[in-house]
Amino acid sequence: MQEIITKPTWRQRWHEIIFEADTKAGQLFDVLLIINICLSVAVTMLSSVQSINAKYAMVLTGLELFFTIIFTAEYLARIICLKKPKHYIFSGLGIIDLMSIVPTYLEIFITGSKYLSVIRVLRVLRIFRILNMGKYSKQLDLLKKSLVESRRKISVFVMMVSTLVITLGSLMFLVEGPENGFTSIPQSIYWAIVTLTTVGYGDISPQTPVGQIISSLVMLIGYAIIAVPTGMVAVDIYKGLNTNTQSCPTCGADAHDLDANFCKYCGSVIN
Amino acid sequence: MQEIITKPTWRQRWHEIIFEADTKAGQLFDVLLIINICLSVAVTMLSSVQSINAKYAMVLTGLELFFTIIFTAEYLARIICLKKPKHYIFSGLGIIDLMSIVPTYLEIFITGSKYLSVIRVLRVLRIFRILNMGKYSKQLDLLKKSLVESRRKISVFVMMVSTLVITLGSLMFLVEGPENGFTSIPQSIYWAIVTLTTVGYGDISPQTPVGQIISSLVMLIGYAIIAVPTGMVAVDIYKGLNTNTQSCPTCGADAHDLDANFCKYCGSVIN
Amino acid sequence: MQEIITKPTWRQRWHEIIFEADTKAGQLFDVLLIINICLSVAVTMLSSVQSINAKYAMVLTGLELFFTIIFTAEYLARIICLKKPKHYIFSGLGIIDLMSIVPTYLEIFITGSKYLSVIRVLRVLRIFRILNMGKYSKQLDLLKKSLVESRRKISVFVMMVSTLVITLGSLMFLVEGPENGFTSIPQSIYWAIVTLTTVGYGDISPQTPVGQIISSLVMLIGYAIIAVPTGMVAVDIYKGLNTNTQSCPTCGADAHDLDANFCKYCGSVIN
Amino acid sequence: MQEIITKPTWRQRWHEIIFEADTKAGQLFDVLLIINICLSVAVTMLSSVQSINAKYAMVLTGLELFFTIIFTAEYLARIICLKKPKHYIFSGLGIIDLMSIVPTYLEIFITGSKYLSVIRVLRVLRIFRILNMGKYSKQLDLLKKSLVESRRKISVFVMMVSTLVITLGSLMFLVEGPENGFTSIPQSIYWAIVTLTTVGYGDISPQTPVGQIISSLVMLIGYAIIAVPTGMVAVDIYKGLNTNTQSCPTCGADAHDLDANFCKYCGSVIN
Repeated sequence: MQEIITKPTWRQRWHEIIFEADTKAGQLFDVLLIINICLSVAVTMLSSVQSINAKYAMVLTGLELFFTIIFTAEYLARIICLKKPKHYIFSGLGIIDLMSIVPTYLEIFITGSKYLSVIRVLRVLRIFRILNMGKYSKQLDLLKKSLVESRRKISVFVMMVSTLVITLGSLMFLVEGPENGFTSIPQSIYWAIVTLTTVGYGDISPQTPVGQIISSLVMLIGYAIIAVPTGMVAVDIYKGLNTNTQSCPTCGADAHDLDANFCKYCGSVIN
Repeated sequence: MQEIITKPTWRQRWHEIIFEADTKAGQLFDVLLIINICLSVAVTMLSSVQSINAKYAMVLTGLELFFTIIFTAEYLARIICLKKPKHYIFSGLGIIDLMSIVPTYLEIFITGSKYLSVIRVLRVLRIFRILNMGKYSKQLDLLKKSLVESRRKISVFVMMVSTLVITLGSLMFLVEGPENGFTSIPQSIYWAIVTLTTVGYGDISPQTPVGQIISSLVMLIGYAIIAVPTGMVAVDIYKGLNTNTQSCPTCGADAHDLDANFCKYCGSVIN
Repeated sequence: MQEIITKPTWRQRWHEIIFEADTKAGQLFDVLLIINICLSVAVTMLSSVQSINAKYAMVLTGLELFFTIIFTAEYLARIICLKKPKHYIFSGLGIIDLMSIVPTYLEIFITGSKYLSVIRVLRVLRIFRILNMGKYSKQLDLLKKSLVESRRKISVFVMMVSTLVITLGSLMFLVEGPENGFTSIPQSIYWAIVTLTTVGYGDISPQTPVGQIISSLVMLIGYAIIAVPTGMVAVDIYKGLNTNTQSCPTCGADAHDLDANFCKYCGSVIN
Repeated sequence: MQEIITKPTWRQRWHEIIFEADTKAGQLFDVLLIINICLSVAVTMLSSVQSINAKYAMVLTGLELFFTIIFTAEYLARIICLKKPKHYIFSGLGIIDLMSIVPTYLEIFITGSKYLSVIRVLRVLRIFRILNMGKYSKQLDLLKKSLVESRRKISVFVMMVSTLVITLGSLMFLVEGPENGFTSIPQSIYWAIVTLTTVGYGDISPQTPVGQIISSLVMLIGYAIIAVPTGMVAVDIYKGLNTNTQSCPTCGADAHDLDANFCKYCGSVIN
């Protein structure tokens, strides 16, 4: 153990650069990586535009290959510099890293699969590492905690919306029928979702008076129940902000802010 | 009464399996039922898709019939194992159970009515029984209580929205007229709802400058007043969370704040 | 004055029936009036539907005339039974009452003006009188108070949205131009409102890449700033609920509910 | 210095009129300016309408020139009456003032650039100066403070929405393809934004069943996550209202709750 501290092995030095962000070299590595990711996503996007691809096909394919080779090298480096790489390989980040290089190789066998490499954009989320990680992760934790605490409310809400959408969609299929664009129940459910969420493409829209009355109801329901998740989230975030459950040892008051060191009512030390 | 406890009749055993969810057999029954419901809803949906129905009409009709027979048997079993089935038959659940088997039989007389059997999806709500009922029903109670308490606010809001929509719809009918798609006042009211709820299909849209100015107003009103129900719900949920369920031992009043030591109506000590 | 109490004049008796809702006769008058209003609005709506009007033109015109005569009689009765009718005539209600009878008479001179009589729907708001007025008016007062208190915030918000919409609309007019449907700056401002409020008819939509980038920004802004009025209203309603500004004379605690008689912390009498 | 107080120079008198709003002359100047701004914006708008411009081209061009000359004179006056005009010239207001006169002169060289002069509308924001500035600026400060405090939450939210939109857009490009209107990945990302923000133009809409399922997901996500910014803003505004502006006399920390008696960081007495 002592030896390790005094003289790091090459594997440890690499590990520090690739996986940590507290040294100069490690931060530089991360910044370069994110620039590469953004550029490679841009290349994939541009190569999907017919008019651009027609002119610069060679350049774009070359860049695509170039970035894939870099990312492959990086992926291999990550595996090599870990003693037990299994944990990384099967972690969320590891799978995304692998999935962002596979499509380009797959392109040889299946045309079009190269566009799947836009999944690389998910790698940009590594940016949280370079930035003041602590402050952001606190926000993410707050969000995650709110979601976990709201999971029951959310599942009740999702189940109700699903039931509503299936029932109303089917009703509209019967009322409007295939001649007005409601060709099947799944299609009508799709319409109900489009309407309930107030998106309203207009690719399918009711033509009969009865259908218009029902869809007016769907719209008003959608307009009204948007308040439910909003209200729930607002209250959960509010509660999350006031989660210092410790009460003051002197006066017994609670509801102190998370960052409080002293009771705001009697001035005693808390926490 | 004693005899019943020591040796349950067949009716009691059936009742336990079909209506309760605290025995193994009862839970298994519920799980099987819900799987059947989901499958039968899927079959009804698929049979409404022209291309699928053309190929597998026989299979789908067979499955439809199969599920209907199962649900009929279940419905009869529910009635038989109850001493006084009237209460069940005329309850919400009983009516839904009946309505989910009738459409298939009706199909013999009226073509297309079989699609009505998607109402079976409402039966899925029985899922709350198998899951940790208590926790979910608490959420539902909170929701229901909020809605009941907000009923005055909601009815004021609904009445105002209705008045707004009728007035603005009529105005647009006069301004735009049938030549621009506003063929009648009811149709224009439908347009006003589509616009106010920010759905915006685009099947009917204003063409004249005056019409576009009025609809801009409608949109901005719709965009602004969405805040009203949201704010109301948020506050009601918040109040629901900060309200004590304990009622005052002296005057019986409830809905005290969580941090209340004395009844705010009569001054007695509570909690 | 004494004479009046012992024996009400015909004018006083009429006044009680027509303007008050605390006697049996007064309530009956209001209920009949609201039924008449609803029916007459329905008649106006139906007569605007081409297919229905073609068949029942005679009946509908007759009914229209019938209701107008009733409302004219009512209007005259209201004026007669008041000693100083000026106040009523120039009040909001009086103007609506007049405006709901004029269009039918105007129809003789200007075709189509009869549809203006749907303004009668505003008279339905009288319904608040028959219902438990007190409780509803409390809600309305709360709403009105919130709006008045938020007037500064609202005007800041409206001014910012206006500026945003004019600037972005003009920009899109330059970027997209008349060949893509953005025929003029006012039209482009209309498009910006349609997009910002997330209505999205699709009658005008960006075709150029630059235009699509700008409109993506407009949408995201619209999606984000909807939170601003919602948050403001939620907070204002919340504050409105806690407006008992009086603090407890014994322990000094405030934030008591509006209906509190005793301090919830120390049990002292308040208010 | 003494001399200046006793007898203001012409520069000081001009400065007072043009830059201040506490004298009669200064207020009159501002009111006239805002009227001019509104009129000139209206002229620019009208001149973009083909039918109006065809008839009144001469009048509109004349007015346009007239307003530009006025604003040029005003701009020069502002520069002249300041001793060190650099600060003004490179301030936000100064740049807007310059940008609102340049387009008309540019029109000589580049046709169409005159429409850029609608940027003048931003000058209307000077209206806050004439109105009771203090009260409005407090609202603006509250808004600005909320935004600054929420900047971390907002950037997390924006990054997540961006990632979501790029991933889902690319997926739809693969699923639907150019034959269904999803001609490229950037175009599909545009579609994803249109859908996620619930705008829903309908210019591009999914045609395949798989595409419709994915877009249903996008809609539901968009419908649900609108709650996140709303909740955040509501809570931030709420916190802003309950925060004391007084800072701790010992450690200088601010943002204390309104009911705080002691600093929560150092325990000193406050207020």
